[in-house]
Amino acid sequence: MRPLILISNDDGYTSRGLAALIDAMRPLGDIFVVAPDGPRSGASCSITDAVPVSYKHVHSEEGLKIYSCSGSPVMCTKLALDQLLMRQPDLIVAGINHGSNASINVHYSGTTAVTTEAALHGIPSVAFSLNNHDPQARLEHLVPICTHIAGLVLEQGLPYGSYLNVNIPETEEIQGIRVCRMAYSRWVEEFEPCPRSRGGHYFWLSGEQVDDEPSDDSTDLWAMSHDYVAITPIMIDPTDYELIQALKEWDL
Amino acid sequence: MRPLILISNDDGYTSRGLAALIDAMRPLGDIFVVAPDGPRSGASCSITDAVPVSYKHVHSEEGLKIYSCSGSPVMCTKLALDQLLMRQPDLIVAGINHGSNASINVHYSGTTAVTTEAALHGIPSVAFSLNNHDPQARLEHLVPICTHIAGLVLEQGLPYGSYLNVNIPETEEIQGIRVCRMAYSRWVEEFEPCPRSRGGHYFWLSGEQVDDEPSDDSTDLWAMSHDYVAITPIMIDPTDYELIQALKEWDL
Repeated sequence: MRPLILISNDDGYTSRGLAALIDAMRPLGDIFVVAPDGPRSGASCSITDAVPVSYKHVHSEEGLKIYSCSGSPVMCTKLALDQLLMRQPDLIVAGINHGSNASINVHYSGTTAVTTEAALHGIPSVAFSLNNHDPQARLEHLVPICTHIAGLVLEQGLPYGSYLNVNIPETEEIQGIRVCRMAYSRWVEEFEPCPRSRGGHYFWLSGEQVDDEPSDDSTDLWAMSHDYVAITPIMIDPTDYELIQALKEWDL
Repeated sequence: MRPLILISNDDGYTSRGLAALIDAMRPLGDIFVVAPDGPRSGASCSITDAVPVSYKHVHSEEGLKIYSCSGSPVMCTKLALDQLLMRQPDLIVAGINHGSNASINVHYSGTTAVTTEAALHGIPSVAFSLNNHDPQARLEHLVPICTHIAGLVLEQGLPYGSYLNVNIPETEEIQGIRVCRMAYSRWVEEFEPCPRSRGGHYFWLSGEQVDDEPSDDSTDLWAMSHDYVAITPIMIDPTDYELIQALKEWDL
């Protein structure tokens, strides 16, 4: 039986990044896509039980089925696993996201939310993102990179509760692949006024990301800024085990 | 100068949990509230730059200012830090959430999203949640517990990049406080059909949380089910450092 690969994203089912990721996964298995029916950038792991979620069939051909879904990336993934797939997929991939999800962006991303949900289900998964927000960015040269990394994950597996966050630099002269840790960085000057003649206090989310450790070559931001593909392994257990020990000394 | 304490939540600025948390923080410092203008349960760390975010002044008195905000819990927190506060707060607290945020719920919660954002800014923070979804649940007896824990955090500080996820059992006979790790658990049977005579495929998010390690007394779910307050320290760096070593053996 060919491997079954579930794909989702946060840019929606019509995005070019999704099409490129489908191309990259076709040689590896049968593809099942459940992706949002519109943009969900910055959706993080958001879910809701306040409104129903729905899906629509979009396209079927040999080895490929595509559904759109009204929910967030996590809702798409949950609905695929609980309602749409006949068996558990062998791999879940997300992306290719139009924009970097390196460093602390992993907390805000809807792309890495898909892989968080995958890891919570114990399914190996990889999030792919390109450091370029332009929806028309060239993606063809990323296809073999995604096939290579996903193929290795299918072959080797991943430990329960962990996934790979893969971020690809904008350059077309990629220097190689580096395994990294998350860089500590900060978003600064995060809002700009949105003037309105009728009054009120309105702001656009904006800002710049500042790398707090730009000379440390172990981070994902260092790799990207030196034209390497960054692979950051991420755990779903965020417990601070060192701090557990320290807190036991407190007068709680 | 009295400590400055920022409060937010995901149940909205009118929730009783927020009122109880304000009561709990009043003895510790000056209070600044920026909370969503309606319910945002399950918002996780969602953000958006697709629509402007706005705030409204709700109430001011000596030592207490309350603002409502159109955004997610993280947008409330960012807006407070970037636009509304005159200086960086000494502490950020979130809650009291109506419903548990123990175990893997930390990924979906809008309450722990506030404290994630706080930790990303290097500000000590604590998320408080009660294991009871009823918006009318009794909360008065939680006030001294919240004052006690937040007071210790103000006194001792927390390491950069970590916050406390505090979950309080529903019982009124609390046995004590335990420092815990996140329990591994799973949500199962996550959807129920939402029939519609006009057709389409609609579902309500539903499901049951299953504890995968119910007899392990080191977890937050164990503590809660044995009537203890669970304090789980959480890190914003989710890098899987062990897996970095393993991946370096792969033929990448």
